[in-house]
This record gives sequence, C-alpha cells and structure tokens, in this order.
Amino acid sequence: MKKNIRLLIGSGENCADIRYASGISTPDEFIWFEYGSRRCAVLSPLEIDRGKSCAKPGVEVVPDSFFGGTSRLNILLAIAAECQCRHFLVPDDFPFALAEKMRANGLELSAAGSGFFPEREFKNDREVAAVTAAQRAAEAGFAKAVEVLTDCEIDGENLRWNDRILTSEILRAEIDCEILRHGMLPTGTICAGGKQGAQPHNAGSGTLPANAPIVMDIFPRSPETGYWGDLTRTVVRGKASGIVKQAYEAVLEAREYAKTLIKKGTYGAAIHCAAEAVLEKHHFFTGENDRGQFGFFHGLGHGVGLEIHESPRLSPRARTALQGGEIVTVEPGLYYPEWGGIRLEDLIYLPQDGSEAVCLTRAPDFLEID
Amino acid sequence: MKKNIRLLIGSGENCADIRYASGISTPDEFIWFEYGSRRCAVLSPLEIDRGKSCAKPGVEVVPDSFFGGTSRLNILLAIAAECQCRHFLVPDDFPFALAEKMRANGLELSAAGSGFFPEREFKNDREVAAVTAAQRAAEAGFAKAVEVLTDCEIDGENLRWNDRILTSEILRAEIDCEILRHGMLPTGTICAGGKQGAQPHNAGSGTLPANAPIVMDIFPRSPETGYWGDLTRTVVRGKASGIVKQAYEAVLEAREYAKTLIKKGTYGAAIHCAAEAVLEKHHFFTGENDRGQFGFFHGLGHGVGLEIHESPRLSPRARTALQGGEIVTVEPGLYYPEWGGIRLEDLIYLPQDGSEAVCLTRAPDFLEID
Repeated sequence: MKKNIRLLIGSGENCADIRYASGISTPDEFIWFEYGSRRCAVLSPLEIDRGKSCAKPGVEVVPDSFFGGTSRLNILLAIAAECQCRHFLVPDDFPFALAEKMRANGLELSAAGSGFFPEREFKNDREVAAVTAAQRAAEAGFAKAVEVLTDCEIDGENLRWNDRILTSEILRAEIDCEILRHGMLPTGTICAGGKQGAQPHNAGSGTLPANAPIVMDIFPRSPETGYWGDLTRTVVRGKASGIVKQAYEAVLEAREYAKTLIKKGTYGAAIHCAAEAVLEKHHFFTGENDRGQFGFFHGLGHGVGLEIHESPRLSPRARTALQGGEIVTVEPGLYYPEWGGIRLEDLIYLPQDGSEAVCLTRAPDFLEID
Repeated sequence: MKKNIRLLIGSGENCADIRYASGISTPDEFIWFEYGSRRCAVLSPLEIDRGKSCAKPGVEVVPDSFFGGTSRLNILLAIAAECQCRHFLVPDDFPFALAEKMRANGLELSAAGSGFFPEREFKNDREVAAVTAAQRAAEAGFAKAVEVLTDCEIDGENLRWNDRILTSEILRAEIDCEILRHGMLPTGTICAGGKQGAQPHNAGSGTLPANAPIVMDIFPRSPETGYWGDLTRTVVRGKASGIVKQAYEAVLEAREYAKTLIKKGTYGAAIHCAAEAVLEKHHFFTGENDRGQFGFFHGLGHGVGLEIHESPRLSPRARTALQGGEIVTVEPGLYYPEWGGIRLEDLIYLPQDGSEAVCLTRAPDFLEID
C-alpha cells in the first residue's frame, strides 16, 4: 500500500473529523496531518496556546511558522518536504481550489471516500457519556416547555402565558435558555405548532395553537466536547382531535417497534421499512399530492456524535448492517398539511460488546397536557 | 468569455454563498446553479415546501427528482445536459471528491478564486438592517451582563451572585438567554475573566474574578436572516489595577482613532497599523516570549454579514482599499499572560454613497462597575 500523508483542513467547531483527530476546538480553520506515527496540528499564533491545552495525547501542536508558511500551500509543501512524501489522502469535502494548487505544485491527492475516520461511527464510553450529557440538556429543555404549556391558559384558539399570547419564538427561547443553563448550546430548536408541523424542518413561528399538536425537536451541542443530543416530542395543550390521537399512537408504536430492531446485523433499511409498515398498519400512508408531500417522508433515523447527522443512516437506502457501537436516533413521523405533524424521537446506543441496545432518552411520552 | 454553469453545494445554515444566492436556509446541503438568466435551487423532498416559501425572487425551486437524480453526480449530469454546457464554475471550497467524479464523467470545473459573490462584501439597506438587528441583541446581552455584575457582591477574589459564586458559565448563560429572548441565536459567547482573557479565543470557564478584567465577546446570529452581530466589551467588577486602566485607555483610543479611518480608499493594513501605533504610543508592545504571545497579535477587524468573519479584513496583510458598502468590526486588543486582556469592538458601516461611516454599535464604554 502506498504511503500517504493523511490531511485535514477545517475548524474544530465545524469539522467533526478534525475535532475527532486533534481534540482541538477552534472557530478558525487549521491544518492537521498524520504520517506514520506522527500526528500534528498546525495552528495560527492566535490558537496555539489554547490548542496545546486541549490537544489529544500524542498530537503534536505547532504554530504555522513551524512549517515556514504564510499560505496554506506553502505549509503543505513544507510538510511534504519534511515527510519526504508528496501524496496526500484527503476527505471527500477537501477544498477543490487548494487541491488544484497542490497538484499544480507537484503534490498528489486522492479522496478517502466514505468517511475519513469510519471509526467515528462506533462510540467509546467517553463519547456515549458526552452524547448522554447533551441529551440530558435536551430533556431539561423539553421539561421546561411542558412547564410553560401547563402554565398556559387556553384563550380561544390561542395559548396565553404570562399575559402574552404564546408564540413559537417565546417557547423556543424558554427551551433554549434551559439548555444554556445546563451548559449546552441550543442550535435550532423546532417548536412548530399546528399546520407548520407538517413540514419536518419548519422551525415554527408566530402564535402556537391550543388543541393542536406542537412538534418540539431539540438538539443541543456541548461546547466542551462537541457532541450532540437529539430529542423530539409532540404534545397538544388542550384536547387532541381523533386523527391526531390516532397518528400519535401509530408513531409511538412505530418508534417502539423500530427500537426493538436496533441490534447487531440489522440493516438500516429494514428498520426504516418496519417502522413504515407499522404506520401503514394504522392506515397512515405516504405520498404526494398538489398540496405537497404527506405521511412519513423522511429517514427513520441517523447517527449522532460530533455531527448531528452522521453515519449510520436508518433510511430506505441504508444498505449496511449495524455492527455495535452506534448511537442512532429513531424518529418516525407523520405529516399531513390538513392538521400538522407528529414526530417522536428517541436516542439509542447499541453497545459494542453485543449486549442489548440502550435507550439514552429519559423524556416521558404523552400527547395531551390538560 | 466561456459560458459556465455557476454551481454551489451547501446548506443554507453553513454556506453563506448559497443562502445569499437563494434566500433559502436549510440544515441540509442542496444544489444551486445559475446559467444565463436561470437561477435554480434543487432541494430534497423534505425541504421543497419550505424552500419555495423563502426563495429569493427569480430563483426557481425544484425537487431533486426534477433532474432525475438520486446522486449528486447524476443531478449535475442532468443539469449539464439540460443547459447543454459541461463547464462548471465552483467556489474554492467545493468538495474535492465530487469534483473528481464530475471530471471522470466528462464535466469540467474551475474554481472562482477569491469570493464566489464578491458583491457580498457590499451591503444593501436590508442587509445593514439585518446586521443591526443582530447587533441590538448582542447589546441586550451585554446590558444583561452588566446588570448581573452590578448585582454581584465582591467576596474576596470572587464574585457572588444569587448566593452562588459567579462563573463564566453562569454569566454566559445569562447573556445568551437575553439574546434568545431577542429572537437571535447565541453562538459562542466569550466571558473570559482574568488571565483567561489573555487568550483572545478562550471562551472562559470557572470562577470569574473580582477586580480583574472580564472580556465579553458576543456574536449572535439571526435565525431568520442569517446575518450576524459582533460586540466586545471588557469590564472590571470592582477596582481595576493601574496597568489594566492604562491598557483600557490605550485600546479605547486605538479603536476610536481607527474608526475615523474607515472611509473610501483607505487600506485595511493602514487602519490596522494605525491602531497598533496608538497602542505603542501608550507603551504597549507586541511580541512573543517563553510564556507565549503578548500585546496586540490579531487583526484589527473583519467584515460581518452572512459570515461572522468575511471580507474585507483589517489586518497587516489586507492590501485592498475600502470601497463603500462594507460592514467591518474595529476591535483592537491587548493581551498579557500576567494579567489578562482588554478588547473593545465596535461595528462600523461605510455607506456606498460616500457619506461618513456609521457606528452600528450602541453599547456604552466603561471599564469599572463599582
């Protein structure tokens, strides 16, 4: 096998691979490379002290002046010269223009293909603890939302809280403040009421309705570890309609059934299709009409770690088997433009040792807050 | 000039160019292209409805099935076939592996070089309003911090608030909650007390000291518009030492003097060096010793818009002149491992019409909270 310099360029905050490799969290991009047993982070003067204090054991931290460079290209040429190797293995999303410049200067590159660190998919105990800590903050945020909704008065079609009409924005701020008080960063909390909930990614805006589902999808990140949590619950303040109750029961059954399939050797696609079958058993079908898509039209789940969406996927296209060590969401949903959406999401850890999957989520399940 | 398909791939949340081009904010990546007068966003089924509702006028929004593709490569091949053009102009950070696959399938690519949309540097009124709105949230966060610090009691070397020892984490949570209540997202608020403040990017952790500087760098983002604010103030709860007072006065004078240089035709490097000269006039010098760097060792400022750090830069290397339309930070700082740091940051808008630069920041300047 040809010897390569494995190369990453990214910021600790936005590039999960470089954070995984180096342990360093920075707002600005830096260079990391591995050659033989040498692993090295090349930081700007501004980051060097902080980088040294949080680098993983065995990672050498040097200022960019160490490789004599003011430009990235010069630094990479110096690295190649020092390693006496001009072939770099880079991640698929390596920046194209820099790759072109490297080639024009006699360096060679190839893309690593699916995953620069495939082992990121399989979590160790420290990583499971980090995800669990973020998940606890998500649950605290949900508990706060339930407290607010319980405190609300129903005022016709609206909800009134602290003498104001309750909006998505107000409820989101309360959830997110609770997350902050737990030392985590809220990132894009969804509080989508009524028909807005029919769009799975709609964050929600304006007045929140009484007697209609409110989808709350809460995914905080730890600023210290970089790991994420992910939780979705859907509740109704007041009375749910018949169809909403049926959809809730169907989604809950689909989630619980799918969770029993999280074990070594099961295929992501099989788990997704099993959840879909439960929904269909309850006569909830998926399709598209002139009002848009309806039913269950997203993947059942995804890996969670240093990225909020990472491998493995539990989706119709996921043709790989679970191996043990994965943390995945299981989040079936039903969405109908006529009345909105129901999504219920738990976070599951499948241990590497072959023992049973563990649900990392502790938030309770209920539909109505009376 | 050869006719190209201009191509972007990114998420609305993380890729400023695609948000600028399309108006669409998504957590997941999508394809955008421009060919002749046609501008088109190619979205997943999950995003299509929301994409249509927020796309900029003139931007066509189609599902990826429109280009018959399940893979990105297939979609791009279909776009090339429909446009009868196989040459793509892409941003410098276009993903390398996809570029390789495109070439292997007969498509051609070239990198756009410095900035895919150079016009992003020059803000229209709507953009100035969006940055200003985010800046107001930053100011509210700072006002909240001042309220907390004023409420504190000095307890030896520590600060006590609500019967607890005040920490960076608690103060940050209070600032960030205030930002959330203003409808903006906090992103990585710095509250670094004492010697931690000597590292410009240290977010701060643990107990906050009395009688020592606390650097607060607050940069919220609007979830609706995607534009950022950016504010830094440094305060002391209690009494500042002589050297801290002198450093504060030097930094304040450097900032105010540099602001007078924000006008059409001035070079970024000249403004940076002018600020540095003011600091040196006050006998504050920059260098490096065995304890690390000291003095003023970062750039004076940067553009703010859909990215928190964007063109233009006000740094020793910034060899371009201001043209009008820029929004830039002016944020000199002094950092000494012996006692910590002082940084004071305002946000300045230089109108396109040749009129005087406007300070968008309203936060007051003071050092001590007695």
